[in-house]
Order: sequence, then C-alpha cells, then structure tokens
Amino acid sequence: MTGSSSQARIGWIGLGVMGAPMCGHLLDAGYSVTVNTRTRATAEPLLNRGAVWADTPAEVAESAGVIFAIVGFPADVREVFLGAHGALAGAAAGAVLIDMTTSEPQLEVEIAEAAAAKGIAALDAPVSGGDAGARNATLSIMVGGDAATLERVRPLLEILGKTIVHQGPAGAGQHAKMVNQILIASTMVGVCEALLYAYKAGLDLDTVLEAVASGAAGSWSLSNYTPRMLAGDFEPGFAVDHFIKDMGIALDEARRMRLSVPGLALAEQLYVALSAEGYGRKGTQSLVLALARLSDIDWAEVTASA
Amino acid sequence: MTGSSSQARIGWIGLGVMGAPMCGHLLDAGYSVTVNTRTRATAEPLLNRGAVWADTPAEVAESAGVIFAIVGFPADVREVFLGAHGALAGAAAGAVLIDMTTSEPQLEVEIAEAAAAKGIAALDAPVSGGDAGARNATLSIMVGGDAATLERVRPLLEILGKTIVHQGPAGAGQHAKMVNQILIASTMVGVCEALLYAYKAGLDLDTVLEAVASGAAGSWSLSNYTPRMLAGDFEPGFAVDHFIKDMGIALDEARRMRLSVPGLALAEQLYVALSAEGYGRKGTQSLVLALARLSDIDWAEVTASA
Repeated sequence: MTGSSSQARIGWIGLGVMGAPMCGHLLDAGYSVTVNTRTRATAEPLLNRGAVWADTPAEVAESAGVIFAIVGFPADVREVFLGAHGALAGAAAGAVLIDMTTSEPQLEVEIAEAAAAKGIAALDAPVSGGDAGARNATLSIMVGGDAATLERVRPLLEILGKTIVHQGPAGAGQHAKMVNQILIASTMVGVCEALLYAYKAGLDLDTVLEAVASGAAGSWSLSNYTPRMLAGDFEPGFAVDHFIKDMGIALDEARRMRLSVPGLALAEQLYVALSAEGYGRKGTQSLVLALARLSDIDWAEVTASA
Repeated sequence: MTGSSSQARIGWIGLGVMGAPMCGHLLDAGYSVTVNTRTRATAEPLLNRGAVWADTPAEVAESAGVIFAIVGFPADVREVFLGAHGALAGAAAGAVLIDMTTSEPQLEVEIAEAAAAKGIAALDAPVSGGDAGARNATLSIMVGGDAATLERVRPLLEILGKTIVHQGPAGAGQHAKMVNQILIASTMVGVCEALLYAYKAGLDLDTVLEAVASGAAGSWSLSNYTPRMLAGDFEPGFAVDHFIKDMGIALDEARRMRLSVPGLALAEQLYVALSAEGYGRKGTQSLVLALARLSDIDWAEVTASA
C-alpha cells in the first residue's frame, strides 16, 4: 500500500455477486481501485484486471478518496466501517464513504455521525436490480445523506446504475430500500398463491398467466419470476437468506416506528420456513416451493404440467 | 315483447357500473338489445338509445339468441339463469348464455349442465379491467366453456373487450378470474404497507415511489392506486364489497381444493375490517385506510404530507 491519500483512487470493500461486477465497472471506466474482501482469492479476477489489494478496510481507505462497501449483513457493515480496522479508521478528512449494502437505517446514521466527527462524509446507497442489474450497470440506487455529497460522487454512481435518486438524510436510502422490499414481499406471496391456485384448478398455466399479466394483476415479479418457477429454475438472482435479512430489518424498523405490517410478517415467516428447508442460498422465486409444500403439492408435477 | 326468437337480437341482464356501458357498446355497434335489470329506472338511458325492456330474465331470453348477464353475487347469478323466471326458462334451443359476473366456478358448471340438457350453450366469461375497462371496451375476458361456442360469440365479445382468452371448460373462466384476484389481493397489501412505512420513515412519498415503481417492486396496483390514495380519492373503480365477494369465492375454492392461501386470507380479513368501517362501496384502494387505522395513522396527515 502506498499510504498516500488520493481523490482519484477508489476504494472497494466486498466482492460478492453484487460487488465484483460493480467494482469491475469502475476499473473498466479507467479508475484506479484498491480492494478488500473477506477471502483474497475472490479478488483475483479483479486484481488481474489492475485492482490493488489491501489487507483491511482501513488500508483500503488510506489509499482512496471515495470508499465503497457492499457486504452481507449489518454486522459486516459495522465491522468494515466502524471496526478497529474499518474504513473510518483509515480514511482521511474529506473522504466519502458509500455503503451500498442493504442494511439498518439507524446504523447508517451512526456511521454518518462518526464520519462527520472526523470531517468525512458518508452516504447510504443501497441498490435494487439484483445481480443482473449489477452486471449490466442498470441498478436503481437509493441514496441517503447529504445532497451535496451525492452530487460530488454522482459520476461514480452513474457508472454503476441507471437511476440514482436522493431520498433524504442518512438512513433514508435504506428506508427507501425497505419500501422496495416490502412491496416485493407481499407481491411474491400473491404470485405463488395464484400460480398454485391455477395448478390446482386445472388451468393451463401459460394461458392464464398470459391473460392476467398485462392487466390490473400484473407485476414485475409475476412477469419475471413465474417463467423461472415453471422452468424449475431456482438459482439466485437474489438469495432467500439475503431477503430474510432485509425483511428482518424492515420488521425491526416497522416495530420501532409502531407500524403494523402483517403482510410483510407473513411473507417473512414463509421465507424463514423456506430457508429452514435448505433454500437459503437459492433465489427468492423459490417461495413457491414453501407454499407448495404447505398444501402437499409436488412442484415437479406442476412444472411437468406447464 | 315480441316473443320471437332471433339470433340477431341480443339479451342483456344487469345494468350496473359494468353492465350499462358494456350493453351500450352493443347498441352502438348496431345490435338490437333486450334488457332487464333489478330496477327499471336504471335502464332508462339505454331504453332511450333503443334498447327494449323485458320484465324478467326469461323474457329477455325469449327474444334473443345470445343472452349476457353481469350481476352482483352468485345468488343473483343463480336467480337470473336458473330461477323460475331466469334466462334458461326462456331461452330456445341453440341459444348461448354468457355469464360475465365474477361468480363461483361450480355454479357455472351447474348452469352449463342445465343449459346443455335443453340444447343451450353456456359460457362463463368474467372480466378484469374495472369500470374504466367497461367504458373503454378494453376489458380482459376470461372464458370457460366450449371452445367452439366461444368462437361463435367472439365477435360480440370483441365489442366489449380487448383480450379474449379461452381458459378451459365451464368454470375455467371463473378460476382464471380468481387467479387474477389472488394476485391483486396480496399485491395491494404490499402497496399499502410500503406506503405507510415510507410515511412513518419520513421519506418523500413521491420520490420513493418514483424510485421503486419502475423496478422489481413495480406493479399495476402500485402505479395506478398510490396516486389515488395520496390524492385522498377512494371512489370506486372496483368496490371493496365486490372484492370481498371475489376473495370469498377464491377462499372457498382453495379450501375445497385443499390449497392453503395465507396471503389471500390475510388480505380478505383486512378488507372485511375495511368494510366494517363503512367502506364497502368505496374503491379497493381504500385498503390503505384499514392498515393506517391498525397503526393509528391519520390518512389525512399522510395526504397532507404528499
């Protein structure tokens, strides 16, 4: 590590199914990028494309003016930003921290306050669009934090996504992402129940889906997930255990705000059952398997009928 | 009444918010139409446009080769088709009965069998698209019954709707409509919970909705109902009590088929609570008021903030 701070150099923490392609877009755009992720081997493809390795998030931050992270769970976010070897320990005054993980709104407020005390700006900028959005740089990015800071880093975010919208102060990006996940949760329950009803009623599944998808019953989930379900394709996409994490955050926040969200709570419980059956790393469209099992329906027979 | 049977003359039973504009389209297309509805005064505008009144569904059927009905509840469907003065009592061999009410699949099977015994064909052909779809002739029509019979009457259905799809034997049209309603039920729960979460989290509602509506969280309900909710516009569209009727049929059918549909059951209970508060004749977007009340949120304050 050079140890020198540079506005032009980017830091990137977290090279999972989302982070790796996103970081790759910055390399492709000609930026110098220092990277850290849990397992160094994961970084090799990016190191081969010119990224520089750092042993800790703090070291990443020492070399960079803008430091991104997209990791797993709120505990990971806390560690990579606020931990003893976290980005905040290494970042210089004037740096910008950008958390793209879907995480707790209150934690983002905490990070922003800790950063501000050191003259550092922090944004929460979770994304929607899944792994395909990360690969194709078509993510929707929901940003919380100082609006002027967002404008400083907007050119970088535009390399990663298509829609970048300021949602309010620190934590507001996460709250907006929760709105997104709350919508998806109940919509997916409806999609799965409707599909299973159609099967039990003996309807031709393609015919009925075609009839309803373009009308008032239509949704992105219906149009995009039912073909995968009917093909027996349960690969992620967006993994069940990550969705459970997101719904848990939303339920915690709703409880804190004294907001009753029975539809979200039901969806979360069905996803927990699905994960208990071993589908935690499969895609969220697997929900249909949990609902099929509730009614003793063998999904293989459904796909065979489609 | 002439009492003479004629292929060219159409019969129409039920002139509510859906039936009146649909019947009007047939008049506009040049068809001779005999009508009956519960309250004769309701028919006056159509009588002034050339429709002929009949005192009972049976009399309607005596004059017509194709007899449509779109009434309220399954009990009404039973009466207007199978009652002592119902359409089947008046229809001649070779006639076609078309029930466009959203009703019970098993009742449609019963009607089709009773009709067949008299050499009469029957189709179930419930619609989606609401009152706007009825007015603009853009309905989606889901048809159950004999496919050849559908082809005979397709030119008439094409005057009423945009998408006409054969879904299978008698009752299959109703089952397809149930698939449609199951999708809408849970999607609406998600829309309402997401909107209330956004409000409680202090987000700018228009900004967050714009960010999520075009992505994986998007749905017809989100795009079309949230503007009405935020404008405090709870007029129907599609009335709460009719949706409760539809969900009740779907729940009955699911129970009969031994299919567990917890999302639908939850949505139905929330709508029942909404109707109990006096919103039965308001639009289905009123659901947000039931969920707001659960968390002691004054919706007027939400609309004032939007």
